[in-house]
Amino acid sequence: PMLGTTATVARTGRPSPRSAATSALRTSKLTSPGSSARLFSSSPRWDKQKLVILGSGWGGYEVLRKVDRKRYDVTVISPNSYFAFTPLLASASVGTIDYNSALEPVRRFHDITYYQAWADKVDFSRKQLVCMPATGSSTRKRINASISDATDSSIQPTASFPGYKPFEISYDKLVIAVGCYSATFGIPGVSANGYFLKDIRDSNKIRSRILECFELASQPTVTDVERRNLLSFAIVGGGPTGVEFAGELHDLTTTELAEAYPKLSRLVNITIYDVAPGILGSFDKSLAEYATAKFVREGIQIKGSRHVTAVHEGYLEIKEEGKVPFGLLVWNTGLAPNPLIQSIKELQKDEKTKSLKINDTFNPVTNEGKELKDVFVIGDASALKQKLPATAQVASQEAHWLSKILNAEARGQESPGGFTFHNRGTMAYLGDWSAILDRSQVEEGPKGELTGRTAWLAWRSAYWLQALSFRNRVSLAYVRDLSS
Amino acid sequence: PMLGTTATVARTGRPSPRSAATSALRTSKLTSPGSSARLFSSSPRWDKQKLVILGSGWGGYEVLRKVDRKRYDVTVISPNSYFAFTPLLASASVGTIDYNSALEPVRRFHDITYYQAWADKVDFSRKQLVCMPATGSSTRKRINASISDATDSSIQPTASFPGYKPFEISYDKLVIAVGCYSATFGIPGVSANGYFLKDIRDSNKIRSRILECFELASQPTVTDVERRNLLSFAIVGGGPTGVEFAGELHDLTTTELAEAYPKLSRLVNITIYDVAPGILGSFDKSLAEYATAKFVREGIQIKGSRHVTAVHEGYLEIKEEGKVPFGLLVWNTGLAPNPLIQSIKELQKDEKTKSLKINDTFNPVTNEGKELKDVFVIGDASALKQKLPATAQVASQEAHWLSKILNAEARGQESPGGFTFHNRGTMAYLGDWSAILDRSQVEEGPKGELTGRTAWLAWRSAYWLQALSFRNRVSLAYVRDLSS
Repeated sequence: PMLGTTATVARTGRPSPRSAATSALRTSKLTSPGSSARLFSSSPRWDKQKLVILGSGWGGYEVLRKVDRKRYDVTVISPNSYFAFTPLLASASVGTIDYNSALEPVRRFHDITYYQAWADKVDFSRKQLVCMPATGSSTRKRINASISDATDSSIQPTASFPGYKPFEISYDKLVIAVGCYSATFGIPGVSANGYFLKDIRDSNKIRSRILECFELASQPTVTDVERRNLLSFAIVGGGPTGVEFAGELHDLTTTELAEAYPKLSRLVNITIYDVAPGILGSFDKSLAEYATAKFVREGIQIKGSRHVTAVHEGYLEIKEEGKVPFGLLVWNTGLAPNPLIQSIKELQKDEKTKSLKINDTFNPVTNEGKELKDVFVIGDASALKQKLPATAQVASQEAHWLSKILNAEARGQESPGGFTFHNRGTMAYLGDWSAILDRSQVEEGPKGELTGRTAWLAWRSAYWLQALSFRNRVSLAYVRDLSS
Repeated sequence: PMLGTTATVARTGRPSPRSAATSALRTSKLTSPGSSARLFSSSPRWDKQKLVILGSGWGGYEVLRKVDRKRYDVTVISPNSYFAFTPLLASASVGTIDYNSALEPVRRFHDITYYQAWADKVDFSRKQLVCMPATGSSTRKRINASISDATDSSIQPTASFPGYKPFEISYDKLVIAVGCYSATFGIPGVSANGYFLKDIRDSNKIRSRILECFELASQPTVTDVERRNLLSFAIVGGGPTGVEFAGELHDLTTTELAEAYPKLSRLVNITIYDVAPGILGSFDKSLAEYATAKFVREGIQIKGSRHVTAVHEGYLEIKEEGKVPFGLLVWNTGLAPNPLIQSIKELQKDEKTKSLKINDTFNPVTNEGKELKDVFVIGDASALKQKLPATAQVASQEAHWLSKILNAEARGQESPGGFTFHNRGTMAYLGDWSAILDRSQVEEGPKGELTGRTAWLAWRSAYWLQALSFRNRVSLAYVRDLSS
């Protein structure tokens, strides 16, 4: 019944993407499938196929950028109207970089259709999706909400937020690049009292809260104990993102904030907690030790083998320590499956990550063993036979290869064949112009590790320069608006 | 009893402002006045007086900048931790300028004490203030709340927002520069459903809502009527701020947003409503006509002699028109007294504006006719015998003159005497590189009016260049953080 009562956006397959988009808006009022607009959908007169991309992260945005948009009628569906350059989120959260330089709006491509929406269900046999609009603060709470909230029926359309109801959209080819959610391992209170660091909205909220903690700690009505608690910054999860945030926060509190709040900076405490014995478990051991030594020297505490059992307003419960107060908690303990992937029952999944199993051309496989040749899954939502880490580098390389596959088919060229990952090394910024660069796993170029300022220079050339080139490609004012 | 149970920040009068501030933090835990810390307060050993400035707008911030901080022990109390360059708020709200360039943090002055707080009560005989902390989103709702909410006792301190309770602070000299609130004339629903444009937070919210309206209007589930309503931008109040916002919004929707949302820009409707027959009533008639003609040419509607009777979610009730739907409502109909000024009963007030009457050295007058020589009121909260408009120009000139008075006294120099206002003309930006400049009332320099690009050049040299110089004076990253 849900499918029958939703609005339908027909698969038009028209020659011009602009007129196709116009048509999409016009037909959106149809309240049931099977209306006249859908008569075009399987017409052999049009060879231009409708490509629907779910997601605008490292996978989805890279496909959008690289796919031949003259030969595909492209529709992007994502709750985020921009691509976020995630390696810069930690920097953006402390203000080291302007967060505009970490963003690129989907709507800079004028030859596509974009809907700010979630895909809630996929009907692989009918080649149709059911989507929900994701515009407006009233719907934002679904982002990073726990999975049981994702079908929250309490959100209703209002005069200020009309159109909050499901709609259908059809596809010829589907790219699933929806990524993952932040894992909380069922620990109560994480979403309500902690901050994730997966998105630019998270960065902004963290930046506001850091300043708020310093202003609150400046109030004459705050006790010494409350003041120390407000200036206790807890980071749970010692992976690259948590480590980068700790380094950037240490820089901020010892430079700009030390000038603005001279009496408070000596009260600042930064602590990283992890269930593992140390930080940066995925890095080469010597590099993790280098980072640990640097942090200890700077007064950043690293507490390994710690198990958080609950998060309350203003304090953690840790099995080994009891109650641990904080002013700000940043939570970065890994990934949980996206609700869309959870909703898919007919495809094979990886036992451990619950991601969709794919072959080397990114096609998922039904429980009966049939490969879906018109569906492609990339990035964190997918699992190749060769296990790859859930990183931006993997998603980006997969997206690049997928666009080659799609373009070859559209141009009648030979397929590029199966995908192989090429490890280009792993990097983490430690603050204070210092970084670590792990190239122990790479197949080409110089192997080995780099530390300190040399590694920072490599980090900067890989990340910063790429990010700064955004400024030349898009109007900054426009990017800023879309991110608000 | 309220005074007796609050924390006390003693008037220390110590030689170094930094140690005075440290002392203030230390003594903040005292729960009653008259404790040992206050023994210093009237000691004749210290000639450095404690100057308390309420407000960080055009008046308060200008006094802070110009007063001799080596000879005064300065404390600023303001809910806003930054000065907002208000002529740029309309530009910031549509993204024409980066809002950072419209801000300057109070904490860039390291030789003062700053509390992010409201002053709730003044005891002029004891020379003491009762203040409430104003840090954090839980307390933000007081800003722009209706006056009856200003003493909302439902806000309670929590683990994340400790210290939310009143504190006392004493002064030798007091500057009241708290400005005004936005007037709503008792029309129901304005605060809940409209946006003001008095502060940088307002600009950010408006920018987000504009983009949200365009994304909502792009949803396939939205009807044609809902789409037109979402893209109806209503501005109530045809003064310079409302007019500037209309001009900037028209620019935005016909350039960047027209590119990003090609199918929507023709549906945009911008309408200015006013109770007066036309817009810009305070300007010379020929200039108001010039602006009106330009707007009509561009399709911006001007509806004079309209009376809004209520505001609901998504629509206005207008006496002459009935229900008028909108996607965004910007409300700019003038000023209402600040709650602090309302709370003062012992001083003479202007009949019409309810501002505090002052003499030409800014001292208020008791109901018994006595001038308070250690209290100064400037800007919108004050009323000189010669009636002046409630503008940034007036507040700024008054603040400049007051700092001369204060510095002369501290340096043992002759007082500069009474204040006289020098009208430098009035300007409004109309969008599309066009402005109007009214110099019909000026006493010196070229009289008369300017329009179009010439006036824009004058507007730019007066406002933009002054604003852009901010960038050289403060760290941009720091400004951005404080504004979040």
